[in-house]
Amino acid sequence: MLSATPSGPNCKNPTLVTANDFFFSGLNLPSNTSNILGAGFTPVGINQVPGLNTLGISVARVDLTPNGAFPPHIHPRATEIVTVLEGSLQVGFVTSNPANKHFTKTLQKGDVFVTPIGLVHYAYNVGKGNTAALVAWNSHDFGGVTLLPKAIFGANPDISSDYLARTFFLDKKIVEELQAKF
Amino acid sequence: MLSATPSGPNCKNPTLVTANDFFFSGLNLPSNTSNILGAGFTPVGINQVPGLNTLGISVARVDLTPNGAFPPHIHPRATEIVTVLEGSLQVGFVTSNPANKHFTKTLQKGDVFVTPIGLVHYAYNVGKGNTAALVAWNSHDFGGVTLLPKAIFGANPDISSDYLARTFFLDKKIVEELQAKF
Amino acid sequence: MLSATPSGPNCKNPTLVTANDFFFSGLNLPSNTSNILGAGFTPVGINQVPGLNTLGISVARVDLTPNGAFPPHIHPRATEIVTVLEGSLQVGFVTSNPANKHFTKTLQKGDVFVTPIGLVHYAYNVGKGNTAALVAWNSHDFGGVTLLPKAIFGANPDISSDYLARTFFLDKKIVEELQAKF
Amino acid sequence: MLSATPSGPNCKNPTLVTANDFFFSGLNLPSNTSNILGAGFTPVGINQVPGLNTLGISVARVDLTPNGAFPPHIHPRATEIVTVLEGSLQVGFVTSNPANKHFTKTLQKGDVFVTPIGLVHYAYNVGKGNTAALVAWNSHDFGGVTLLPKAIFGANPDISSDYLARTFFLDKKIVEELQAKF
Amino acid sequence: MLSATPSGPNCKNPTLVTANDFFFSGLNLPSNTSNILGAGFTPVGINQVPGLNTLGISVARVDLTPNGAFPPHIHPRATEIVTVLEGSLQVGFVTSNPANKHFTKTLQKGDVFVTPIGLVHYAYNVGKGNTAALVAWNSHDFGGVTLLPKAIFGANPDISSDYLARTFFLDKKIVEELQAKF
Amino acid sequence: MLSATPSGPNCKNPTLVTANDFFFSGLNLPSNTSNILGAGFTPVGINQVPGLNTLGISVARVDLTPNGAFPPHIHPRATEIVTVLEGSLQVGFVTSNPANKHFTKTLQKGDVFVTPIGLVHYAYNVGKGNTAALVAWNSHDFGGVTLLPKAIFGANPDISSDYLARTFFLDKKIVEELQAKF
Repeated sequence: MLSATPSGPNCKNPTLVTANDFFFSGLNLPSNTSNILGAGFTPVGINQVPGLNTLGISVARVDLTPNGAFPPHIHPRATEIVTVLEGSLQVGFVTSNPANKHFTKTLQKGDVFVTPIGLVHYAYNVGKGNTAALVAWNSHDFGGVTLLPKAIFGANPDISSDYLARTFFLDKKIVEELQAKF
Repeated sequence: MLSATPSGPNCKNPTLVTANDFFFSGLNLPSNTSNILGAGFTPVGINQVPGLNTLGISVARVDLTPNGAFPPHIHPRATEIVTVLEGSLQVGFVTSNPANKHFTKTLQKGDVFVTPIGLVHYAYNVGKGNTAALVAWNSHDFGGVTLLPKAIFGANPDISSDYLARTFFLDKKIVEELQAKF
Repeated sequence: MLSATPSGPNCKNPTLVTANDFFFSGLNLPSNTSNILGAGFTPVGINQVPGLNTLGISVARVDLTPNGAFPPHIHPRATEIVTVLEGSLQVGFVTSNPANKHFTKTLQKGDVFVTPIGLVHYAYNVGKGNTAALVAWNSHDFGGVTLLPKAIFGANPDISSDYLARTFFLDKKIVEELQAKF
Repeated sequence: MLSATPSGPNCKNPTLVTANDFFFSGLNLPSNTSNILGAGFTPVGINQVPGLNTLGISVARVDLTPNGAFPPHIHPRATEIVTVLEGSLQVGFVTSNPANKHFTKTLQKGDVFVTPIGLVHYAYNVGKGNTAALVAWNSHDFGGVTLLPKAIFGANPDISSDYLARTFFLDKKIVEELQAKF
Repeated sequence: MLSATPSGPNCKNPTLVTANDFFFSGLNLPSNTSNILGAGFTPVGINQVPGLNTLGISVARVDLTPNGAFPPHIHPRATEIVTVLEGSLQVGFVTSNPANKHFTKTLQKGDVFVTPIGLVHYAYNVGKGNTAALVAWNSHDFGGVTLLPKAIFGANPDISSDYLARTFFLDKKIVEELQAKF
Repeated sequence: MLSATPSGPNCKNPTLVTANDFFFSGLNLPSNTSNILGAGFTPVGINQVPGLNTLGISVARVDLTPNGAFPPHIHPRATEIVTVLEGSLQVGFVTSNPANKHFTKTLQKGDVFVTPIGLVHYAYNVGKGNTAALVAWNSHDFGGVTLLPKAIFGANPDISSDYLARTFFLDKKIVEELQAKF
């Protein structure tokens, strides 16, 4: 969807707005986890619910198969609050430089965890069954998301492998193999 | 809790912060609905999770017995997004003057509904079983809440019954009976 | 007026702007109070003064006949400051739950009273003569207004009378009579 | 008053707040105009009404004797809206560089004029009688005020007269005479 | 450039954006100082770098010949931070009324000075050689600029010379000569 | 420095503020590049210049030896604008998911490049000599910084190597070697 103005998509004509513009159905159903990371995601943001435009909140259902993982990522414009619906879930975030302090918890059903805006965080299903959780962000489209492995090793076009090798202390050959995987 | 500064409670010493400051447990358990409205509420905001300070988001679990109801109310500083976990739930909000347009839906498990910041809204269990829902707001303590029947007829001290009778087109006697109930 | 963008109506071409876009005339004249509540209102906001677009302030003149009243209402996006020009005026506001504390004053000519953003408040002419006041809000169209009796009992379509009876502790019949009046 | 925090003075203990914290009396009385410019000013901001803290609005009464003038000034953090209560008043503002467009009106009783935040503006009593006006700003202390003649020629310590002569195209001697007057 | 929306110029189609939209070349070259004040200015803001739209920062190179001066001015929407690249530079700002306190420094190569948003400030080459500096503002077009001598004495149309004479304590004749120079 | 309030460090007593609170000296000198990455950094933010408190801007000088590099990093609360003072510098940023578009330029003396708030970006000296640049951010302490290699592989305590191996498609042994290096 194209943002036509600096403050977001144009508004719908108010006389045409209905209750359906504030409604979404289906978060009781598991998200599709048929991918290499075993991680499913059903977003409920401005693209699904037009009435959220400018309102500064969105939710999503996330599902993880056993050993499923969301890669380390950042929401540059939103704080995240996750509530586990079923299964168990290791979550954590890392504070900014120079502390790089790692806060982590293994959550069970009914547990809640907060990740402050802009920090590297992750989620990993360390249990034996599937995990489902409801996540909320204070942005109308979860504030964008930067998946770090992909942004770093899967950028398009590639970031220089010399540079990545130098700053990740990896062999250039390993960097190039990584880039080929993304 | 006393807000010591215009921007909220003072910050915890960062070196003493732990993962527990971002954690809450127990949203899998029903809230206490033993009250006249059959409405239970378990908040997860700044008072329960200190790490939410300034982060602009909070959640809560709400429960309603059959015929249970949350009175018409307003969150002056937060948009609300509700996801039904079980049961069914009639929700609605009314736009501001002069339209006073009423948007409403009866939600089932997995349905989501948004109420924009500052508008009168409500929730009513119109089903035969209990209803549970997870609610999120973009404020670190759901933006305060003005329960309208109580703010109008249960203010302390009372608002003049002459005035309320005049503006609600009610007999003064009925107003005074109402005030006595709150 | 239709808001075409999320941040408000589009801007006028700057080369066509004149001093008249920042000007309004006539606040020395009483507003029209020929209505059931004896309450008159002359707004000076973005619809009257296009130059106010995005500037975050507006004013109005209000007039009340003896026993005239503005119903309990809320400005979701603006703080209000009222200055009495003539007559006397009882004003008040109620804080949010759980305190529901009622702050009230009876104002005379030259008195000023502030109602914080988002709170239920009211104005009632308890004097023997007409009352006039100048009101200012920190929003370019007084932040919208939710007139509570009308939003609750005069929503379009109606909110369920079963629900309103339950949450206002009123007989369903009285609720339906009220709804018929709005 | 000392601002103890970056967001302003600390908050009063909420349990000690009364209606008087939102109240001011006396705007029906003329301000004191016994000064060289014949300009009086009675502010109603955070210093007079503690309840305005963080609320983002303030008002004042201004009075001008015939030929009385408020010097060109700027409110760096507030838009201004003036309503004339009696007399006549020439007002104007100048847009920023490079246009430097001058918008002006001579207002009569009941007229309203808006000056956008941050612009040079002025007020001058061009009538034969006294002028009174009510002014509102969207800041809790009218956003500070920079009186330009004083800030430029009356700064403490003085700005270099060589510099001022050079940039105002004035003789250095005239600049120094001006500085002596402030 | 015409601002089409209240939040600024419309966005470029994201699929057409390139690295050049975030790029500018040439700040190593002196700005043109061939003017009466010996003051050159090469801006790098939203008009030069479209990718700055909404991002809230801009820079510029400024150059001053010996005795060159930027007139007293105000950025209504931006704080300024200047770093001297070569030469020496007297800078200063004046706080708002009633203090009108003048903070000033004579900077050398490698020195940095901050002027808070909205305050009168200036820069004057008091050295024997040319001065160059890099300036940054937290606004995508340095927050507009009000050059005070021009806004006051060069407004279009003129501000009344009677008024300016009265508030600057200058002879009306001198005011009119000044107005003729701008 | 400990932030005592949610909006930052407390304010200095205004009567004790001097021009030195807005001043910093020494950006003409190279930063210390004696480290494994050949990257030097001299910040000028709120810790160096107390007067920047709340003002939303800061600068720094950065230096890179040949082949020197700043690792991929994110400023969660600030846009960055870099101006090259000498040498050449490859810079780039990557947009958020799903595009992961890489924008890059090799800058020469006098070139300017912008990195939008919250995005992964980097700087690499691809020239034969030293590189120096002046950087500005619209935050009073460059908005914190998350150095990604360190936040991911050098968090304290470690993030699970199983998890990192899984999401970076690396052998667990390589992950553990990496963690040992940080």
